[in-house]
Amino acid sequence: MNPAIESSLKCWHEIIATGDTGRLRSLLAPDCVFRSPVAYQPYRGADRTELVLATAASVFEDFSYHRRFAEGNDVALEFSARIGETELKGIDLIRFDDEGLITEFEVMVRPASGLQALGEAMARRLGGRL
Amino acid sequence: MNPAIESSLKCWHEIIATGDTGRLRSLLAPDCVFRSPVAYQPYRGADRTELVLATAASVFEDFSYHRRFAEGNDVALEFSARIGETELKGIDLIRFDDEGLITEFEVMVRPASGLQALGEAMARRLGGRL
Repeated sequence: MNPAIESSLKCWHEIIATGDTGRLRSLLAPDCVFRSPVAYQPYRGADRTELVLATAASVFEDFSYHRRFAEGNDVALEFSARIGETELKGIDLIRFDDEGLITEFEVMVRPASGLQALGEAMARRLGGRL
Repeated sequence: MNPAIESSLKCWHEIIATGDTGRLRSLLAPDCVFRSPVAYQPYRGADRTELVLATAASVFEDFSYHRRFAEGNDVALEFSARIGETELKGIDLIRFDDEGLITEFEVMVRPASGLQALGEAMARRLGGRL
């Protein structure tokens, strides 16, 4: 894997492990796109992507990554987490550019109860900020 | 990748392309587990996994695979599809044994509208058969 991408992934895992989202913005390409597990329309730009990712990081409890897949500049990271008493599984599909910046971040979550809990928790935290 | 897994994946893609689910059973380990995008509880055994996969294959329209990731005996296949007028994205997380048989098949789908359409379409086709 491209060392710049490897380095960004290491930073991403540190952000998730520590909850220190201050370094998040440095990983995002200015025109990056976030594809939500809940909403059909993507969120465009580093501002909105940063807000969504930082909020999600604060919503999940007992978050941990499991299988990691890589192919070219694309990575798929399997995770499990909890929101209150609702357990969920998910996958982060992340596309990087050659400089290691995130250009696309897509998330899928299962089961339906987990997706619903996530959507509700995100809406509560975000208010109408998106 | 293990040639037995490569061969099973080729067969899986043929099944999806042709809709000929008759060969599906030959790909499943007897004790394989299906993890639904909708339900929390897994479906256990080749009978139920075959029924769910064959039903899903008949429910999706305009189904196509995109990015493919592989790591050891695990594969992640990104897909897009449509159910009526509802577009969705998804991922198949498939684990094989060394003989190329599927031991775990997990599916995640986004967005929420797509997951709901899938759950309703599956429930209609399956009746109470699961």
